[in-house]
Amino acid sequence: MASVPEPSCSIARSLDVLGERWTFLILRDAFEGITRFEDFRESLGVATDVLSARLSALVEHGVMEKAEYREPGVRRRLAYVLTDAGRELFVILTGLQEWGDRHLPWPEGPSLLRLSERTGEPVHVGFIGSHGQEVPPQDVVYVPTSAYPQRRLAAQARRKQSLPPQARSASHFLDLAGPAAGRDGGD
Amino acid sequence: MASVPEPSCSIARSLDVLGERWTFLILRDAFEGITRFEDFRESLGVATDVLSARLSALVEHGVMEKAEYREPGVRRRLAYVLTDAGRELFVILTGLQEWGDRHLPWPEGPSLLRLSERTGEPVHVGFIGSHGQEVPPQDVVYVPTSAYPQRRLAAQARRKQSLPPQARSASHFLDLAGPAAGRDGGD
Repeated sequence: MASVPEPSCSIARSLDVLGERWTFLILRDAFEGITRFEDFRESLGVATDVLSARLSALVEHGVMEKAEYREPGVRRRLAYVLTDAGRELFVILTGLQEWGDRHLPWPEGPSLLRLSERTGEPVHVGFIGSHGQEVPPQDVVYVPTSAYPQRRLAAQARRKQSLPPQARSASHFLDLAGPAAGRDGGD
Repeated sequence: MASVPEPSCSIARSLDVLGERWTFLILRDAFEGITRFEDFRESLGVATDVLSARLSALVEHGVMEKAEYREPGVRRRLAYVLTDAGRELFVILTGLQEWGDRHLPWPEGPSLLRLSERTGEPVHVGFIGSHGQEVPPQDVVYVPTSAYPQRRLAAQARRKQSLPPQARSASHFLDLAGPAAGRDGGD
């Protein structure tokens, strides 16, 4: 965790554990049911030492765990399985999949559909409000708490004075307490 | 794109563009309203050449674009702003933030809240069905299409024979056409 430049930011902390392409691809394989070192290696074509390091980091950070199991009539085997924390990354992986299908399309079309198993309907990743209803992304704002770095907050306020028009509509940052309170980050 | 080991997988393609910790942190800053090279550099404490390479890659892949603007009485300035494709990554960034707040908590608590600006209610990232209703993650399955690599499909089917119990419940992969059709990936 010492390598995180901004430890109060949970995105930075998450990426300190996950921010590696191989790591996300290991997780993808895990969600497809892969558990054995050799199967990860074969699926990803990744070097043994890199795979070993990534799996160890995932175990160390509580995203995966090692489990022994025994196939009928065969020796004990070691499996890498997702923890509850690891399973919660499914929605992020699916978001990356959706984005790739939309913006980096493959000539033959999407290789996987995302469906509700119960109803068969397509599902997508999005924002959900407290009554289980979809909330459009342009309505979602980040509001800093007292744990947000003061130094960053001051820089934000300074920058807001001269934000180019295109950036104003992209900003999801709303400083309720700052000098620019009210609305000047949105629409 | 030549570096993607499995180009039919949209997660792999997305990570080929985004799979770098700095890249996600640049996007985080962009969603907070940062647009200038110097402000990204100051915010991230990243080396100039690394930042320059990451921003160029984001522009090249259509996630950000360069825009010139003029502050009153000042020379023209260059801004890096999110494209529509870039803005769609907001939900993925927010997912990483939520996950970090939950599983890698910061002693002082979350530094940002995620709220609906319209209603003030907290929002979270999740799966949404075709009627705008929340779908629980354990109900979401990946169903392979004809674009899914046959080689991988065969390996999946082979592995399913000897999946350890823990992996069975983690797998979200449902091969409707395969020998294990029906249900043997879920609960």
